[in-house]
Amino acid sequence: MSAARTLLAASAPLWHRIAGHPFVKSAGDGSLDPAAFGRWLVQDYWFVLGYRRFLAGMVTLAPDWRSSDVLTAGLSPLQDELDLFRREAASRGLELGQEPSPTTLGYTSYLLASLHDGYDVGVAVLYGAEKAYYDAWVAVRASADRNSPYWPFIDNWSSDAFAGWVAAVARLLDAAAPSGPSTPMRRAFDRVVRLELRFWDAVYTGESW
Amino acid sequence: MSAARTLLAASAPLWHRIAGHPFVKSAGDGSLDPAAFGRWLVQDYWFVLGYRRFLAGMVTLAPDWRSSDVLTAGLSPLQDELDLFRREAASRGLELGQEPSPTTLGYTSYLLASLHDGYDVGVAVLYGAEKAYYDAWVAVRASADRNSPYWPFIDNWSSDAFAGWVAAVARLLDAAAPSGPSTPMRRAFDRVVRLELRFWDAVYTGESW
Amino acid sequence: MSAARTLLAASAPLWHRIAGHPFVKSAGDGSLDPAAFGRWLVQDYWFVLGYRRFLAGMVTLAPDWRSSDVLTAGLSPLQDELDLFRREAASRGLELGQEPSPTTLGYTSYLLASLHDGYDVGVAVLYGAEKAYYDAWVAVRASADRNSPYWPFIDNWSSDAFAGWVAAVARLLDAAAPSGPSTPMRRAFDRVVRLELRFWDAVYTGESW
Amino acid sequence: MSAARTLLAASAPLWHRIAGHPFVKSAGDGSLDPAAFGRWLVQDYWFVLGYRRFLAGMVTLAPDWRSSDVLTAGLSPLQDELDLFRREAASRGLELGQEPSPTTLGYTSYLLASLHDGYDVGVAVLYGAEKAYYDAWVAVRASADRNSPYWPFIDNWSSDAFAGWVAAVARLLDAAAPSGPSTPMRRAFDRVVRLELRFWDAVYTGESW
Repeated sequence: MSAARTLLAASAPLWHRIAGHPFVKSAGDGSLDPAAFGRWLVQDYWFVLGYRRFLAGMVTLAPDWRSSDVLTAGLSPLQDELDLFRREAASRGLELGQEPSPTTLGYTSYLLASLHDGYDVGVAVLYGAEKAYYDAWVAVRASADRNSPYWPFIDNWSSDAFAGWVAAVARLLDAAAPSGPSTPMRRAFDRVVRLELRFWDAVYTGESW
Repeated sequence: MSAARTLLAASAPLWHRIAGHPFVKSAGDGSLDPAAFGRWLVQDYWFVLGYRRFLAGMVTLAPDWRSSDVLTAGLSPLQDELDLFRREAASRGLELGQEPSPTTLGYTSYLLASLHDGYDVGVAVLYGAEKAYYDAWVAVRASADRNSPYWPFIDNWSSDAFAGWVAAVARLLDAAAPSGPSTPMRRAFDRVVRLELRFWDAVYTGESW
Repeated sequence: MSAARTLLAASAPLWHRIAGHPFVKSAGDGSLDPAAFGRWLVQDYWFVLGYRRFLAGMVTLAPDWRSSDVLTAGLSPLQDELDLFRREAASRGLELGQEPSPTTLGYTSYLLASLHDGYDVGVAVLYGAEKAYYDAWVAVRASADRNSPYWPFIDNWSSDAFAGWVAAVARLLDAAAPSGPSTPMRRAFDRVVRLELRFWDAVYTGESW
Repeated sequence: MSAARTLLAASAPLWHRIAGHPFVKSAGDGSLDPAAFGRWLVQDYWFVLGYRRFLAGMVTLAPDWRSSDVLTAGLSPLQDELDLFRREAASRGLELGQEPSPTTLGYTSYLLASLHDGYDVGVAVLYGAEKAYYDAWVAVRASADRNSPYWPFIDNWSSDAFAGWVAAVARLLDAAAPSGPSTPMRRAFDRVVRLELRFWDAVYTGESW
């Protein structure tokens, strides 16, 4: 079993909670409280900024030009994503650039901190963060209303382009761990899934310092 | 006013809560629940390991040999500190090396992540983390029982040696920001104080994923 | 005077040697020894790979989203550049991936090492490396033969697109040092210019371990 | 064969040149030109400052507390070493803090740059740099005059304490690569040996920009 599949299998119980998280489900069926969506928009914008720093850090750590080519290609779409956040925040009168919540700060800090654990751990972290988003949003795409105010976000992370990126990251992960994920890789992947769930909990219910 | 004093003054409301935190106060008067102490021991050991990586990272970022000399000197005492944790954990039958709580993981990750914000921000982070420990433990030292099971820890962070280290870090901070702390330095210092308080809340009351 | 102009003015004597370096001049007028061009192709490909890691590292260090947007945008064109090197090397039967010469290894290592000196120094390093390439190739563009085997490279680094990138980096530099470059920034910029000249010397005359 | 022994065996031809380098030999028998010694003192002081940043960076990358304990312990003796350089430079009227030569800048930059290649490569780099110094100076210790002006340096890197450190690094290397060094580790180790030789060539004969 490939490293990517091994990590997914090992975290299956947590994983089910991701695709069925009430935040994602209610965003899909349009029942999401606009205030919760606003919280998510502000926190996830912060997250994407931190994630971009992390992904760029992975380019710095990439062990060869092939993996560097793949990782660098993942940076370009982030600009459109950030621009989408900026437009949507402006149209909703939301202020980006607020101090992040404890959970968001912890999650993005963990991404950046994991760079010190080296490329192999980093690619497990990257896969966890991206696969979680893909699986969550693809789960709601079928039933989602294309006129939903949340459609641009649903569409972004359930698109074929994003699917291709997640698959490319899985291949990097498999190449980094041909005989299966190491203990530090397993630990890091598991942490990302837990941090992801806590992130959604926090934006769904609200969280303050 | 020096950069260090400016940062302390700006966070005064939070700072009062540090020296009076129930975890520290009850450790001082001996009334602390041994289970809470055990939680702290395990989490703080993890913290010190992460802090050592952060402090070593600061040596890598140090802009000149003088600051590098000072920061490197701060690494040596950590070995005694870690050995103390290992002995105390062993004598209490506590297993070190457990997965950290969300708050501990977030705090140590923030230390490491802040290295990407550069030396000036890092030295503000360093000062916040060290000054918080010093002020908290020095507040209880006078009234603490030297036969308390917690005395070795109280003594460690309220010692003259530790006071000297904190003062040396304050001088690095003042030298890094001769005309006062920048906005990123203020923000980072404020975060550390908040993370420190949440860390003590979490070990005092217990926290799980 | 802006930080970028100050740095250029301070290194004027070295700078004249860049635009008039025999390697660049002979590439422009077509008289360059094909063996020297081959050496350059192999060494510069290594350089671009190292430069990409450096530029990605700068994204990780960027102090705000605006500078991060600019720096990230600089990564995309590198893929076309690397593909050009790969095609040209293949058509000439040159093996990329050889061990770099001492000078190339030293130069690319310096780029990566400078990331530990923080964003401000890094942006001075970035400007030095990019401005040197732009000025050198633009100097030969007017007289260069568009049928020259070296035209794709001349065109790449003297293009309007590249000019726009260099100007954007100059603005980042000016924003990072509104009251002029610091001593570490000056020192780093000066080193890059010297390393650049040594790089061209080495490929022009050949260098081995 | 352990990873450390494998790396040494693979670089045997270069390694012989280290222990027999005219700089080291003439320092041992006292025939070294004082001007060459002065050049070395200035360049090696710069090297040790860069090496300290590198070694601290290794602490940040260390995968577990055991290796972190070992690496951190290697930082303390550097303070005595740097103080020795400062005293000796002062007594000879040599100015430390000069711009390093191209070779010294390239070598120290490579140490710092290699941190981006991860812990395993870093520990191969560390072993190469330390083992080279140990073997070179131990080779001359037996015949060296204890009244030689160079004795404090000869003694420092041929001491039992230094031998113990080099052996500890070899154990870290063996633990990092239980089934032998990877290709990137081999390449990095080989580079360090070549950079070391070039460093001694440069200080022996003099080098300028």
